[in-house]
Amino acid sequence: MKAFMDETFLLGTKTAQELYDKYAAMPKIPVLDYHCHINPQEIFEDRKFENITQVWLGGDHYKWRQMRTNGVDEKYITGDAPDHEKFLEWARTLPKLIGNPLYHWSHLELRYYFGYQGNLNADTAEEVWNLCNEKLKSPECSVRGLIRQSNVRLICTTDDPVDSLIWHEKIKADPDFDVQVLPAFRPDKAMNAEKPDFTDYIAKLSETSGVQITDLASLKKALMNRMDHFADHGCTVSDHGLDYVMYVPASDDEVDAIFKKALKKQPLTETELLQYKTAFLLFVAGEYCRRNWVMQLHYGAKRDNNGYMFDRLGPDTGFDCINNHTPSAQLADFLNALASKNTIPKTIVYSLNPIDDAAIGSVIGCFQGGGVKNRIQQGSAWWFNDHFTGMTNQMRSLASLSALGNFVGMLTDSRSFLSYTRHDYFRRILCNMIGDWVENGEYPYEEKILSDIIRGISYNNAVEYFGFDLQKV
Amino acid sequence: MKAFMDETFLLGTKTAQELYDKYAAMPKIPVLDYHCHINPQEIFEDRKFENITQVWLGGDHYKWRQMRTNGVDEKYITGDAPDHEKFLEWARTLPKLIGNPLYHWSHLELRYYFGYQGNLNADTAEEVWNLCNEKLKSPECSVRGLIRQSNVRLICTTDDPVDSLIWHEKIKADPDFDVQVLPAFRPDKAMNAEKPDFTDYIAKLSETSGVQITDLASLKKALMNRMDHFADHGCTVSDHGLDYVMYVPASDDEVDAIFKKALKKQPLTETELLQYKTAFLLFVAGEYCRRNWVMQLHYGAKRDNNGYMFDRLGPDTGFDCINNHTPSAQLADFLNALASKNTIPKTIVYSLNPIDDAAIGSVIGCFQGGGVKNRIQQGSAWWFNDHFTGMTNQMRSLASLSALGNFVGMLTDSRSFLSYTRHDYFRRILCNMIGDWVENGEYPYEEKILSDIIRGISYNNAVEYFGFDLQKV
Amino acid sequence: MKAFMDETFLLGTKTAQELYDKYAAMPKIPVLDYHCHINPQEIFEDRKFENITQVWLGGDHYKWRQMRTNGVDEKYITGDAPDHEKFLEWARTLPKLIGNPLYHWSHLELRYYFGYQGNLNADTAEEVWNLCNEKLKSPECSVRGLIRQSNVRLICTTDDPVDSLIWHEKIKADPDFDVQVLPAFRPDKAMNAEKPDFTDYIAKLSETSGVQITDLASLKKALMNRMDHFADHGCTVSDHGLDYVMYVPASDDEVDAIFKKALKKQPLTETELLQYKTAFLLFVAGEYCRRNWVMQLHYGAKRDNNGYMFDRLGPDTGFDCINNHTPSAQLADFLNALASKNTIPKTIVYSLNPIDDAAIGSVIGCFQGGGVKNRIQQGSAWWFNDHFTGMTNQMRSLASLSALGNFVGMLTDSRSFLSYTRHDYFRRILCNMIGDWVENGEYPYEEKILSDIIRGISYNNAVEYFGFDLQKV
Repeated sequence: MKAFMDETFLLGTKTAQELYDKYAAMPKIPVLDYHCHINPQEIFEDRKFENITQVWLGGDHYKWRQMRTNGVDEKYITGDAPDHEKFLEWARTLPKLIGNPLYHWSHLELRYYFGYQGNLNADTAEEVWNLCNEKLKSPECSVRGLIRQSNVRLICTTDDPVDSLIWHEKIKADPDFDVQVLPAFRPDKAMNAEKPDFTDYIAKLSETSGVQITDLASLKKALMNRMDHFADHGCTVSDHGLDYVMYVPASDDEVDAIFKKALKKQPLTETELLQYKTAFLLFVAGEYCRRNWVMQLHYGAKRDNNGYMFDRLGPDTGFDCINNHTPSAQLADFLNALASKNTIPKTIVYSLNPIDDAAIGSVIGCFQGGGVKNRIQQGSAWWFNDHFTGMTNQMRSLASLSALGNFVGMLTDSRSFLSYTRHDYFRRILCNMIGDWVENGEYPYEEKILSDIIRGISYNNAVEYFGFDLQKV
Repeated sequence: MKAFMDETFLLGTKTAQELYDKYAAMPKIPVLDYHCHINPQEIFEDRKFENITQVWLGGDHYKWRQMRTNGVDEKYITGDAPDHEKFLEWARTLPKLIGNPLYHWSHLELRYYFGYQGNLNADTAEEVWNLCNEKLKSPECSVRGLIRQSNVRLICTTDDPVDSLIWHEKIKADPDFDVQVLPAFRPDKAMNAEKPDFTDYIAKLSETSGVQITDLASLKKALMNRMDHFADHGCTVSDHGLDYVMYVPASDDEVDAIFKKALKKQPLTETELLQYKTAFLLFVAGEYCRRNWVMQLHYGAKRDNNGYMFDRLGPDTGFDCINNHTPSAQLADFLNALASKNTIPKTIVYSLNPIDDAAIGSVIGCFQGGGVKNRIQQGSAWWFNDHFTGMTNQMRSLASLSALGNFVGMLTDSRSFLSYTRHDYFRRILCNMIGDWVENGEYPYEEKILSDIIRGISYNNAVEYFGFDLQKV
Repeated sequence: MKAFMDETFLLGTKTAQELYDKYAAMPKIPVLDYHCHINPQEIFEDRKFENITQVWLGGDHYKWRQMRTNGVDEKYITGDAPDHEKFLEWARTLPKLIGNPLYHWSHLELRYYFGYQGNLNADTAEEVWNLCNEKLKSPECSVRGLIRQSNVRLICTTDDPVDSLIWHEKIKADPDFDVQVLPAFRPDKAMNAEKPDFTDYIAKLSETSGVQITDLASLKKALMNRMDHFADHGCTVSDHGLDYVMYVPASDDEVDAIFKKALKKQPLTETELLQYKTAFLLFVAGEYCRRNWVMQLHYGAKRDNNGYMFDRLGPDTGFDCINNHTPSAQLADFLNALASKNTIPKTIVYSLNPIDDAAIGSVIGCFQGGGVKNRIQQGSAWWFNDHFTGMTNQMRSLASLSALGNFVGMLTDSRSFLSYTRHDYFRRILCNMIGDWVENGEYPYEEKILSDIIRGISYNNAVEYFGFDLQKV
């Protein structure tokens, strides 16, 4: 029996352990976190935490969901119970989460950042509470300290086009912090014409861009203006949250009319909405291509499903789910429309539904080329799939259908500064899988090639693919 | 090489074997079968069987399907061939079913109830025939004997609202039998307004309930009357067989008009039908919540696909399949409608399509809470998924997305009194999975916690979740 | 650590190795390739190859896709670069394909046909290039030589109804070659009324059949004429490439009107098109049944997705993908329509979407019988699923839902004469899976039964199912 989560955690073979130790282990091999949701202001201000509840339970809706699942009263989740009691409820919940990634993430964080080697449950909760809170007082547990401990070299946040990017500027200007913190361009609000606050948002976009938006042409101009602003702040990555990648084409005139209708707050038909969104996405994709940006497409999420709780807690509080309507034909048609004009940007496709793995793997294969390695990528197992089974399945599917060796690998997608150990989790799963293949005679033990592949997927491929100003390792 | 299906069957590690022996093995750890299709009359009358064909092939459409698959003439399946010949055909078919759950189920039953340790094939058929038939003469092989041997403590049958529940009454009144046999409320016929016998059924429901059903209000009253009747017989569980969980809302007036139209045998549009069904389901769910009943939702089955055979054999004869149209968005919207009124009952969701695992796991997470552990459950791998791969995938998915430790576990869903060994099959797979995690360092070896989890999933969680009058073990 | 791809490749247990060696290994156990896309003319003419690029990269769009994925310029893929340089680009790409079936296929071919035991990469490319090209000069590396080396006993090509089958005739008449090369009937062009060249094709069909096609009746007559022609050339297999198996019934008169409309080049509505296709498929299926042919249904592919490349390279050049719209309900309804008239032929169902495995497994179980073992089969993992994970999942699903022992097994679906080692790949995966079951106590070690199953799936089941004039082994 292997010890519980020791240094060989998830590394089932000698080959896996060696490859991991030499070519994947943190902090030796650094972290490039090209997609997350952390707040750059907290980095600039180098936020400190009073206790482990603040770090772990302050904004982590993954944990909130599981506490609710375990029947914990909302008072101890998002309510006004004292932090200590909230932590105890979490500690009581955790053992039930056998086989859940939160079980592993929590203990990886306890080991990496707090040096705790035991397991957290009701009996050990007090000991862990004290140990973590003591540790959190030290400078290496401030936001910047945690980033440095994790050897993070670059972070892409997720930002709205109207964002001033002032905190990114300040971080860049700070001589005491040399980790790159770059914005990513996520214009969902300009695309979601069905939302009640759409016209308010467009007004805001007019103001920020200095372009009076009255029609499709001025909308495009405003967006380009903001892309320029983002580019000036080092941005090379965009992101979109979509129901699914749609393809319902219409003429420019039709789309212009639809957009004007939306500006007048007239309701759009379902088709008009899809036509507007299709046109929007085709336009920005063309711009991304021209600027050599990467386009991330996240789809398949259905958000804010619990209206009762939404009214009380708002979005991103643990009430989202998978939407299984994700037509692969439209994804292919959308990419084809870009390919036909030679305006297909580097693209990363993520579906929240794991059953889409094979379809995505087959679609991306139709649009590769142009001198970029895996110009179209399937993104790492996302959100509800960000666990052992999900990551394994995504990588096996990708390997079977594409060139795994070019995969840009892991991202945290997280709101927490402790999540960098998810890169470690991913790398262990990667090395374990490759170790199995090698020891099973399915791939030759060629150390040079294997080390290139593992360092590539862990770090170097992302450096090259995104074109970041970073040294490979 | 492990011996064929010995006492360590499917238990791949020492930890798995120990956990199974101590905390999961039948009959030590009893059986709670909260969903099945057995006939309570046969329990009351303590039916005896003349031969193994009667028990195994009398009504088991799983076996019939595979005999047809193997090219066996219908005469030897549901026809008038002698029982002995039918058994021989089954024995000839079985070895072809390598990797099929029927192969394991059959041998588990031969071992547990008949003490046969060999394997059944054409050569051993005669020996098995004689051995089983001899054994069937003994009292422990009557219906009650089989239930007692299996240490079953409680059984929920599946019953129509118009059922008198007379057999449940008689069983309860019988001092010689202390296993609880409770009804479950399955009002499909009152919901399926598209069926030709819908109005006949409503007439029957009027009669049984003593409520003249002429509109939606009186339908509701009649249903509540029958729920009261079921509650008086100890019922705390309902069940629904659905194409998919739909959500097409309409006003009460609209639904009332639709229902009256159906009562007049006027054809409903597809939308009207879905509106009626949505309203029906919302209503009964509210009632279940008020009564603290559990609502089971079984969906994704397409039944009676072979019209030619249906004309000859009727329903439930082996001609059903998976329907892959199961929109997760409507499942979420339906549960949200209940949550918005705070009338969401304890609910178990089962899809016949295994690719829905992740979607379901993510949907249920949006509606947890209210002080019940896993108030919304994903049901155990159902029907076509009730096999090693299906159960493993369902549990891994559930573990990744929810709190496996709160899972209510296995049910037989069976028409046979030999099926209790499917609980044993399930528990072996469970213990094997957990044993792997522990020996692989993915979960700590904490015997107290592990024993709670395994006894919980095997038995105790169901006791607590359904609120049955049973002692935990 | 096992050596890289030695003789025990993928055979993880002693039992697997023994079963493979005795009952599955090529060339001892011959090959029956009942579905492929090779050119019979090349067999008749016994084509020779000048170099490994011609064999490997001349028409293999699987490899092209991965070279594009790796960023290789089209010049080195389908362009005018010298063969030697193309090979070097492929050798540079291959190591990136860790976990990809092309990695294994390529090395299986290098071992089986060229005796090369190393691994191909940039460093070994020159050595492999020379070795293969030298070997290709020998007679055993002509088309016929490769077929003989592989102990292929029968090949079904894929042919259009208007094909003269002259090359099949010539091969049959050639006394120097005793491998059966039979046509398969693939009438897609007569069914795809939406295609611009539909009427041209019908004209061609009129001409070839000698039946003037003016209405549905004459279309049927012409098709029957061509089926007779194919039957005269030993054909017993048909094939269809479908978006999905549709069921939109219409009366004969309606379909006749639709067909006439199409002949007049008037555009059909989506419904009319589906009605025509449904009627077409029902008709030919009835004919197949009457003739005791096997009907293959391949669906779920979306082809020619990259318009830009299609304009340059045409079809079958590596730009196809999975379409995830594959309604299982219509598949069931279609088969039911055949069953109701007792005209259901032996049928093999293949979906390109691997998530359809369970749905298909459950549908086919509704239509078995009539004295044929697995009259309805699920075809082996197809195209994008033709890899370790895909084949394993397909066989596990089939085993769980049907009688794996009756499975007709592997086919190459290939355009290459080196692809017969894919049968070897498949058989290793099969033996490994069965070896695991046996060593794990899940199936008894009964050598007679196991050898029947393995030889059956490797060869004998196909002989029996298709009714070919071949000796079992």
